[in-house]
Amino acid sequence: MGEANHGHTHAYGDDPWTARARDLIRQHFGAEAEPFFVFNGTGANVTSLQALRRTFEGVICPATAHINTDECGAPERFTGSKLLAVPTPDGKLTPALIAGAITGVGFEHAVQPRVVSITQSTEYGTVYRPDELAAIAATAHAHDLRVHVDGARLANAAATLGCSLGEACAGADAVSFGATKNGAVLAECVVLLDPALAADFKYLRKQSAQLASKMRFVSAQFIALLEGDVWRENASNANAMAQRLASAVREMPGVRIIQPVEANEIFAALPHDAIAPLQAEFDFYTWNERADEVRWVTSWDTTADDVDRFAEGIARACAAAVLQP
Amino acid sequence: MGEANHGHTHAYGDDPWTARARDLIRQHFGAEAEPFFVFNGTGANVTSLQALRRTFEGVICPATAHINTDECGAPERFTGSKLLAVPTPDGKLTPALIAGAITGVGFEHAVQPRVVSITQSTEYGTVYRPDELAAIAATAHAHDLRVHVDGARLANAAATLGCSLGEACAGADAVSFGATKNGAVLAECVVLLDPALAADFKYLRKQSAQLASKMRFVSAQFIALLEGDVWRENASNANAMAQRLASAVREMPGVRIIQPVEANEIFAALPHDAIAPLQAEFDFYTWNERADEVRWVTSWDTTADDVDRFAEGIARACAAAVLQP
Amino acid sequence: MGEANHGHTHAYGDDPWTARARDLIRQHFGAEAEPFFVFNGTGANVTSLQALRRTFEGVICPATAHINTDECGAPERFTGSKLLAVPTPDGKLTPALIAGAITGVGFEHAVQPRVVSITQSTEYGTVYRPDELAAIAATAHAHDLRVHVDGARLANAAATLGCSLGEACAGADAVSFGATKNGAVLAECVVLLDPALAADFKYLRKQSAQLASKMRFVSAQFIALLEGDVWRENASNANAMAQRLASAVREMPGVRIIQPVEANEIFAALPHDAIAPLQAEFDFYTWNERADEVRWVTSWDTTADDVDRFAEGIARACAAAVLQP
Amino acid sequence: MGEANHGHTHAYGDDPWTARARDLIRQHFGAEAEPFFVFNGTGANVTSLQALRRTFEGVICPATAHINTDECGAPERFTGSKLLAVPTPDGKLTPALIAGAITGVGFEHAVQPRVVSITQSTEYGTVYRPDELAAIAATAHAHDLRVHVDGARLANAAATLGCSLGEACAGADAVSFGATKNGAVLAECVVLLDPALAADFKYLRKQSAQLASKMRFVSAQFIALLEGDVWRENASNANAMAQRLASAVREMPGVRIIQPVEANEIFAALPHDAIAPLQAEFDFYTWNERADEVRWVTSWDTTADDVDRFAEGIARACAAAVLQP
Repeated sequence: MGEANHGHTHAYGDDPWTARARDLIRQHFGAEAEPFFVFNGTGANVTSLQALRRTFEGVICPATAHINTDECGAPERFTGSKLLAVPTPDGKLTPALIAGAITGVGFEHAVQPRVVSITQSTEYGTVYRPDELAAIAATAHAHDLRVHVDGARLANAAATLGCSLGEACAGADAVSFGATKNGAVLAECVVLLDPALAADFKYLRKQSAQLASKMRFVSAQFIALLEGDVWRENASNANAMAQRLASAVREMPGVRIIQPVEANEIFAALPHDAIAPLQAEFDFYTWNERADEVRWVTSWDTTADDVDRFAEGIARACAAAVLQP
Repeated sequence: MGEANHGHTHAYGDDPWTARARDLIRQHFGAEAEPFFVFNGTGANVTSLQALRRTFEGVICPATAHINTDECGAPERFTGSKLLAVPTPDGKLTPALIAGAITGVGFEHAVQPRVVSITQSTEYGTVYRPDELAAIAATAHAHDLRVHVDGARLANAAATLGCSLGEACAGADAVSFGATKNGAVLAECVVLLDPALAADFKYLRKQSAQLASKMRFVSAQFIALLEGDVWRENASNANAMAQRLASAVREMPGVRIIQPVEANEIFAALPHDAIAPLQAEFDFYTWNERADEVRWVTSWDTTADDVDRFAEGIARACAAAVLQP
Repeated sequence: MGEANHGHTHAYGDDPWTARARDLIRQHFGAEAEPFFVFNGTGANVTSLQALRRTFEGVICPATAHINTDECGAPERFTGSKLLAVPTPDGKLTPALIAGAITGVGFEHAVQPRVVSITQSTEYGTVYRPDELAAIAATAHAHDLRVHVDGARLANAAATLGCSLGEACAGADAVSFGATKNGAVLAECVVLLDPALAADFKYLRKQSAQLASKMRFVSAQFIALLEGDVWRENASNANAMAQRLASAVREMPGVRIIQPVEANEIFAALPHDAIAPLQAEFDFYTWNERADEVRWVTSWDTTADDVDRFAEGIARACAAAVLQP
Repeated sequence: MGEANHGHTHAYGDDPWTARARDLIRQHFGAEAEPFFVFNGTGANVTSLQALRRTFEGVICPATAHINTDECGAPERFTGSKLLAVPTPDGKLTPALIAGAITGVGFEHAVQPRVVSITQSTEYGTVYRPDELAAIAATAHAHDLRVHVDGARLANAAATLGCSLGEACAGADAVSFGATKNGAVLAECVVLLDPALAADFKYLRKQSAQLASKMRFVSAQFIALLEGDVWRENASNANAMAQRLASAVREMPGVRIIQPVEANEIFAALPHDAIAPLQAEFDFYTWNERADEVRWVTSWDTTADDVDRFAEGIARACAAAVLQP
């Protein structure tokens, strides 16, 4: 961003930084990919979804999807459409779950399913494998549904799978590709993989208040991440730290890891009385208050020391909780 | 309607028919009630819900609610808000179910619960008793939530309960009071029981395309139903015919009634192979194809003969299905 | 409607009355026409406009258009789109006015013009001639714009032009065809003349709360109007009564007719002090309070006596106003 | 932003940078001011307008307002409301123009005026003086209308007026306070001056996709501008460079300055044939192609040399155009 802060250039993306960032997106997602830089993850999701459906068409997603639980209803507000939320054990849709949500087709009283939205890696820290992605896309397209991938943590999935960013969301028509969680300051990108969607997308972005006048400062963040594979180093570190933490706590008395640890998140059930003391010392989110389940997220700049200190804190808190009368 | 079709009068509700119908609504719902006539049930629901919440506020409702399943996403479209749908065994919310849906209050990432919407009688043909209504209203208001009643079949509930229309939706802030299912041709009414909501409601109705220029023809239908308690006779007949049908089939081999029969609907599980032949002869809806569950609805003008012939048809179809190899 | 009120039939338009009404619409608008019955004029306009554009696309219309001035913002609310309102001398768009409103094409900051909406006959009681309609459609289609006709008074225009209903809106992609102002009780119809629009329109109608469950009562009104050309008799009477009134007042001292009288409306400037006394006796609308301009509307059932009595009243009021010191 | 890029902190604005930026906003706008940081000017405008009105309420603004002409219909899209655009000679509303736009109050067919939106400095580079602001606020509040100020260039107005930022928008209920045009990279702020609006605003911001997770990087830009009055130095430079340019071209043959130069914009009519050659060399916007009117904008970092070179280019282009046969 510092380098982009020299001299004047054209506004609204007609600048060399944005051109370079667009090229890099195409290198990582495929030659047909059409990138549109936006401000944040919700902005990427709601502009993507606007492009993929009409108001009477619904979006099949896991009940745990960020679009369903953490965007204050922005998807409904921007699209006027219903989310068709499906309970899942691990945050992942499957062909069977998708097929079960396709009902009322042709019946004017029912919302018409039109989009499948999955998150890679999921809100539970699990990762869709290539065969799972292929099966979802095949199911969706067989029913004339479009595929959206919320890729706020796509880099983590690609790092886990050892594949390219494009391969980590194969089959998608539109991707919300996140940079903010992978080291950027404030930068997300809608990557359209169906070029037909791109023709009008700039209007949707502008009308949705997601067009930056000084876009080069957003673009520069993508250049920093996508040149020299900084994105993979960052994501790999986050993933490795999650594994380190999981190893440290897996056998710890009182701790029960409740989801596969496949990216940079760990979900664990703790003794009820361990949570508050631990949160007094460390900052993390109680995922499910009633079940005493917590979420721990590792970051691109988390260190082994950070993890080890946190694991010791968990051990202390659990031991104290178990000892209580 | 024929009587209203004489002479000229003012448009948009400034006519004696509408004045009379408004008086009658107040007689049945209470002196403070503010009626606004609209075209159909979806129109009544979406204008009511617009009055009760802002875009970031959600509507707690049963998963089976008509607003959630049968309005092609109209509530989301008109309000921009999320429906917070709660699974129920019998189509009825309870204080405990409502309390369980009140989460994320004050957390800007979460939709803020603001309305409880119940249906009286429910989409499963069950009826909220007065104590249940009171408990729901108390729970809602204790959490600063408003109460909406989808009363498409409110007359049937009042007939079952032996109470007034107003008592059948006690505690509501806004009611979608339906006439079409109770003998009218095309007439519904939003009844606002919190007068503060009424000040601006005429604009919501107009902007939502629910204002009739020749409103007297809508109003006249309410006069026909509400004078001399035609509404109660019609609803009582429908309810009685449902009881007659339930009695006729309850012990029938192959038939299993799966919801309490409290208004004018019967939900039954049938032998899989009985459904198609029966539908070839009679018109009814398969509620749940996977579970072979059907819905039978009796009407204000259903006769005992109609019921008896239908019951014989059910007996024949079930017997044939059971006999199949 | 009385005839439709016998026996039971399928709901939501799957009935013989609706089938018959649909056939009649096709006879009057062309074999390709796809009719969708709705409740009122605003409902017809907002569902039509939803079908014709996306949110970032605008609707070019006269500043005096009903959609711009008299629907409480329903078009913006339902479509999320901007109306690009163009001042006109007589309520009529022209190719030059349309071309002048087509700006910013391809520029992401500007609403993209996508629809031309005209009213036939206009809100000023003027009528587009066939050559004018053809020129508008040619201009619109040359710029990849769709044509919408608000035909709340289409019958009056067809009666004036001596042509069919379809010819009176030639070149349109979608028409809001009104029956209520021409003698019906409560019935309007969206007529889609581009069949591609029809595929999904039923969902737009349902989601917009414009689907009647007992649709046969709406359809029956169209049958009454379209069989035996009742529509033309009604409209011709209204038009003839407007001419009678115009003749009676044209030379009257103090009265100045300010728009061509081509359908069933007369716009006149009156002495300021004549308006209030006249309105105490007769019901009409002050179109422009600051300019002392009024609108007089004749109806399908206005009689020569009605007109003559009204003309005498005008004469009295004007004479009294002129005589005032 | 560099300083904010050290260490970890809480997300979504619960950080010391944001706390400091909020304090600074209050120092400049008043102790009651409630700031909400967002991404861009359109985001600030659409969240402000959402807070100020309901869907059936309209926004009175100059026809040249950015919200009316340059946001691709975002205000209509986000609010569902109509903009009531008023032609003005100089981009400025007046009490008389506002009063003229207040029509149809209480009439359900008409959009109800509810907000007055002005731009300070205006899109024509003119500046509201304190007495003009006071008169507008008095008129608005007398009619129960709220006042919104689009302050994308508020700093330029305050520099011109020699007053504080708060004084430059006195009487406003909500302000879109822009930093991007005054030297920031990507930062705007909604400043709510009616505390009652602030209670729920965080939900509107989140649902409108304008909440930054790493908000400290937005806040840091406001700290840089508002500490030590960098904002005023930047704006004063831009304004001074506009005056320098105006002085240089005012007497130039062929150039006609068509708006008062009061901030950092100059509007000029040029010889038709001078525009294209000049744009080949310098980057500026043709405001009105049909009238050969252009807009020149000076910036916080424009130098006297920049201006002098540009003025020479204008002289050359005009001379060449005038000399053409």
